[in-house]
Amino acid sequence: MTTVLALGGNALTRAGQRGTAAEQLANLRATFASLGPLLAEKRLAVTHGNGPQVGQALLRQERAAEDVPPLPLYLAVAETQATIGALIVAELGAVSGRRAACVLTRVVVDPEDPAFAEPAKPIGPFYGEAQARRLEAERGWAVRPDAGRGWRRVVPSPAPLEIVELDAIRSLLDAGFVSVSCGGGGIPVVRRDGRLNGAGAVIDKDRASALLAVGLGARRLVILTDVPAVARGFGSDEARELRTLTLDEADALLPQLAAGSMGPKVESAARFVRETGGEALITSAGALAEALAGRAGTRVAG
Amino acid sequence: MTTVLALGGNALTRAGQRGTAAEQLANLRATFASLGPLLAEKRLAVTHGNGPQVGQALLRQERAAEDVPPLPLYLAVAETQATIGALIVAELGAVSGRRAACVLTRVVVDPEDPAFAEPAKPIGPFYGEAQARRLEAERGWAVRPDAGRGWRRVVPSPAPLEIVELDAIRSLLDAGFVSVSCGGGGIPVVRRDGRLNGAGAVIDKDRASALLAVGLGARRLVILTDVPAVARGFGSDEARELRTLTLDEADALLPQLAAGSMGPKVESAARFVRETGGEALITSAGALAEALAGRAGTRVAG
Repeated sequence: MTTVLALGGNALTRAGQRGTAAEQLANLRATFASLGPLLAEKRLAVTHGNGPQVGQALLRQERAAEDVPPLPLYLAVAETQATIGALIVAELGAVSGRRAACVLTRVVVDPEDPAFAEPAKPIGPFYGEAQARRLEAERGWAVRPDAGRGWRRVVPSPAPLEIVELDAIRSLLDAGFVSVSCGGGGIPVVRRDGRLNGAGAVIDKDRASALLAVGLGARRLVILTDVPAVARGFGSDEARELRTLTLDEADALLPQLAAGSMGPKVESAARFVRETGGEALITSAGALAEALAGRAGTRVAG
Repeated sequence: MTTVLALGGNALTRAGQRGTAAEQLANLRATFASLGPLLAEKRLAVTHGNGPQVGQALLRQERAAEDVPPLPLYLAVAETQATIGALIVAELGAVSGRRAACVLTRVVVDPEDPAFAEPAKPIGPFYGEAQARRLEAERGWAVRPDAGRGWRRVVPSPAPLEIVELDAIRSLLDAGFVSVSCGGGGIPVVRRDGRLNGAGAVIDKDRASALLAVGLGARRLVILTDVPAVARGFGSDEARELRTLTLDEADALLPQLAAGSMGPKVESAARFVRETGGEALITSAGALAEALAGRAGTRVAG
């Protein structure tokens, strides 16, 4: 039985931290120390987000743009697969004693995906309006005001269709490795004339993780996040954790969930359950042990 | 039979180029188009250098250092494995139609390697003396004047001892993938208390490639570089290409070769041949077809 474990941002960086390598290693150590039996799963495929890290990569490129040509966005995603992947394999090996291998992962998206017509995912540094408008003109970026803190580039977040390295990941699992893949949702590529070309987009890591779990025939998808469970009325006095969600309940709940946050997690969990009949668990690292015993977290099942 | 193919800097960036992704893709396309039968080898493991790219990564980190904490050197190496790896798998797939997968590769070095006591490999941007001295004091770097163009950081280049991901690479070859690994000589790590910790060093990519070739039981190591063959009296009017080198001839030639350039290639080729009885070829992409036929390049054999 294969388990796909999707690590959220909290596993790598915490509020108030600058995001040094030492901080990320310590956070990963704490996360893995909480995962207990999950790390002993015979077939374990780890995925991870890259929000803060890809933002830092883009900021570094901006600051050096006069000296060094900026890389296309898809290579910034690739970069974070390696830097985060190196930290994950180090701590996973140290905590569990298991051999882990990180494979660079491309994910095919459709150039006709409606997301390309309406870029909506904010990424990279904040700019003043004038500079944002200049970058819009010079580089063809889409920019927009974000959360009252300035302007940001927005990019498409198309649906993942195919994990190019799926068979490579499966080969590593077959050989006994814990795989680390699909970092940051994968390097987005589009098929054209027999080529796979990098695309100026980012893919939601939970959606990519669900696609991976379906492709691997996994029995379980575990999505780790900052909160112990999905809650109805999250953030209000009436918030109530949901211990289980049927597929119908998940569908009904989706419109109430935050688009960039819990929404894709519940949607991805439901997709995995619907396509495979497996089970999905949404919880935090700290609550995982209780969640595996059915006493915490949110379990999505058919 | 397994072939290890080590791509030199010329495969990625050429003199006068800025190093954009588009330039690197075009260079890779031209290189792979020259390799003909080699790309059809059933078991093919590709490695590559990262000199200009890791320099650019370090420069980006410097320029953004006030906003974003610089990463340790080993993560800058990791970064280039992904950015270059993504370009290689894209072009290799497009040119050969084969499936390639890039695995993040760590390489164990000895913390007692004498190289750590005498850092000698220049890396990253040039600085004025005052700034170099400041970085030396603030970050514990070793710095020194380089080629009359300013001061640079120098780092240790220890001998590679063990490729951590060797079995993962072998699994990918077994499954029919072209592997891309050991980029930039690998992410240097030292063993300590059951952990593999990143080290502030870089590993010569030809030495790592020879170690990989030995570990994989390869029959052939092909080292691609900018010149068609090893030459005695290189750069002089008397320069004469060497078509073959025995191990004894290689040993005798080594002291005459450039330390950071042809030296490690001949040394690594000889090491591979000595340990395996296989053959090693040092040539350029353009001369490869002739070299495979014995009419160009330098063949090192026992």
